Amino acid sequence: MGHRRFAPRRARKVQGTLVALCLAIALLPATTWAADWLPSWNEGASKARIVEFVQSVTDPTSKHYVPPAERIAVFDNDGTLWTEQPMYFQLAFVLDRVKALAPQHPEWQTKDPFKSVLAGDMAGVAAAGEHGLLEMMAATHAGMTADEFRSIVAEWLATARHPRFKRPYTELTYAPMKELLSYLRANGFKTFIVSGGGVEFMRVFSEQVYGVPPEQVIGSSIRTKYEVRDGQPVILRLPELEFLDDQAGKPVGINRYIGRRPILAFGNSDGDFEMLEYTTSAPGPRLGLIVHHDDGEREYAYDRKSSIGRLERGLDEAARRGWVVVSMKDDWRRVYDAGWE
Amino acid sequence: MGHRRFAPRRARKVQGTLVALCLAIALLPATTWAADWLPSWNEGASKARIVEFVQSVTDPTSKHYVPPAERIAVFDNDGTLWTEQPMYFQLAFVLDRVKALAPQHPEWQTKDPFKSVLAGDMAGVAAAGEHGLLEMMAATHAGMTADEFRSIVAEWLATARHPRFKRPYTELTYAPMKELLSYLRANGFKTFIVSGGGVEFMRVFSEQVYGVPPEQVIGSSIRTKYEVRDGQPVILRLPELEFLDDQAGKPVGINRYIGRRPILAFGNSDGDFEMLEYTTSAPGPRLGLIVHHDDGEREYAYDRKSSIGRLERGLDEAARRGWVVVSMKDDWRRVYDAGWE
Repeated sequence: MGHRRFAPRRARKVQGTLVALCLAIALLPATTWAADWLPSWNEGASKARIVEFVQSVTDPTSKHYVPPAERIAVFDNDGTLWTEQPMYFQLAFVLDRVKALAPQHPEWQTKDPFKSVLAGDMAGVAAAGEHGLLEMMAATHAGMTADEFRSIVAEWLATARHPRFKRPYTELTYAPMKELLSYLRANGFKTFIVSGGGVEFMRVFSEQVYGVPPEQVIGSSIRTKYEVRDGQPVILRLPELEFLDDQAGKPVGINRYIGRRPILAFGNSDGDFEMLEYTTSAPGPRLGLIVHHDDGEREYAYDRKSSIGRLERGLDEAARRGWVVVSMKDDWRRVYDAGWE
Repeated sequence: MGHRRFAPRRARKVQGTLVALCLAIALLPATTWAADWLPSWNEGASKARIVEFVQSVTDPTSKHYVPPAERIAVFDNDGTLWTEQPMYFQLAFVLDRVKALAPQHPEWQTKDPFKSVLAGDMAGVAAAGEHGLLEMMAATHAGMTADEFRSIVAEWLATARHPRFKRPYTELTYAPMKELLSYLRANGFKTFIVSGGGVEFMRVFSEQVYGVPPEQVIGSSIRTKYEVRDGQPVILRLPELEFLDDQAGKPVGINRYIGRRPILAFGNSDGDFEMLEYTTSAPGPRLGLIVHHDDGEREYAYDRKSSIGRLERGLDEAARRGWVVVSMKDDWRRVYDAGWE
């Protein structure tokens, strides 16, 4: 490879093509690019704010210019990059795992919250509260190696289906948000996920689905331990919460994992409030955005009263803080990938 | 910008230059590149192993080819990227901070370990042991915001000098290792620091000195807390250890922060043993390396008996595990940057 010589005629042709390409790129107006990157967004104030922000921080002649190393963008996952109704997808995973493991645990037939899960009694599951959830997390997320856990998640993602849309959960990811992630990366941003979800759960699909590599995923975690088993090192998952990456935990996680303040943050619930506050309350150009779930037809409509993804303080303070409230109904041409219908 | 048209003569000239450049790159043998990247390394087995490894994992026709996303390389810091004698540089920072803060703490004059620090009695400091160290860490590393801590570290780095070399500590970084970091990055590797040192301490200089951005620095940490003070969000540093990134903590930190197993690990002490073990004990091409401090003239000579950076198990097992022991004396043409003498 590389040692072949070009015939003069061939070389002239390549030469011409190269120059044409360089000139075409140089002469293309910047705005054309932006429009092409976000085809699933309707024209309107939200899209305009995003494009203006990206253009101003990447334009070296702008007083708002930000060097590439500092172009950090953080995204919540549940309800921001993919659907979170009728329950967090990771909770659907937990319930399915409880059912799958039940044959090895006869005692679960008479013990809540497992008994309620096996009977399909969601009110009983809910009644078990946080303590019940932690018990189920310990039973389904711990006691195996990190590699084993990843395999279990991957297999579940390949087979489980969303109850309403009858699609794999990874297809319940928002097309406009995936376009935005790509658009930001094409403009020198480093994109991170900062979610209350389990970090090892999300890392199984984040790279393939969002283009976000595992090392740019920040989430809740349980304790782990290094062990050598028969000469093979493993990371063992322990039944103990280590870090809850939600609310005030999000800026803490950002500071711990990234070590500098983002300039763009995108969330959808009050669990993202502190992340947006931290991102936007500092000098220099900053952008905070909130997905507002107001589209019961194509997705779900919920905000102030919802037990999942409640959005109250964010709606009240968005205008005063200059945050963009993105209407799923009005701002998104489509919610999911094309080819669904 | 970009709307200016080239005169035909100018265009032909640009055209010729572009083609010449493309051909030059295509015809350049790959080995020339490698040699140019590591000028501070002597020719020999260590350098050859590094170059062979990098070439084999980046050659798409090789059976050892590794896709760029999986080219993760991890480096210890103290004793691997910079000098760690006569004491960890972060400990020098702690002692200097105790002295700087002493006027505000009259009680330290009679209370160890502070009293010993102020009297310059290093034996007394050592006698205070781990408990004494934690007390000093709490007094010097906590009780301020993350931003304030970064400013204090930056100011110290700008003014403090190494006792033997009379240079800023950031100049005590190893030229061959900085070349290796650049060489790896030029070959699609993502380079991480994984150190027992404080993560926020290292992040102050890692990008400028090593080209490693803050989000690729993993280290020990103390707990932090999010707070809004007069409308301004801050990350507050608390006097409580959160994570010790040493020994078996290193693979745990790698799994937590990166989420996938590295293919190259470089350390210098038994604190790095588990990181090298974890990195190299898995299928596929893998490389483990150890800096051996055998150069008392240009740097320091120490291994099995040293209290700082003890290297015993690593030396005993390197051959059996296929790890490369890099001799500072023989393998490095120079230790620090040129222009020192």
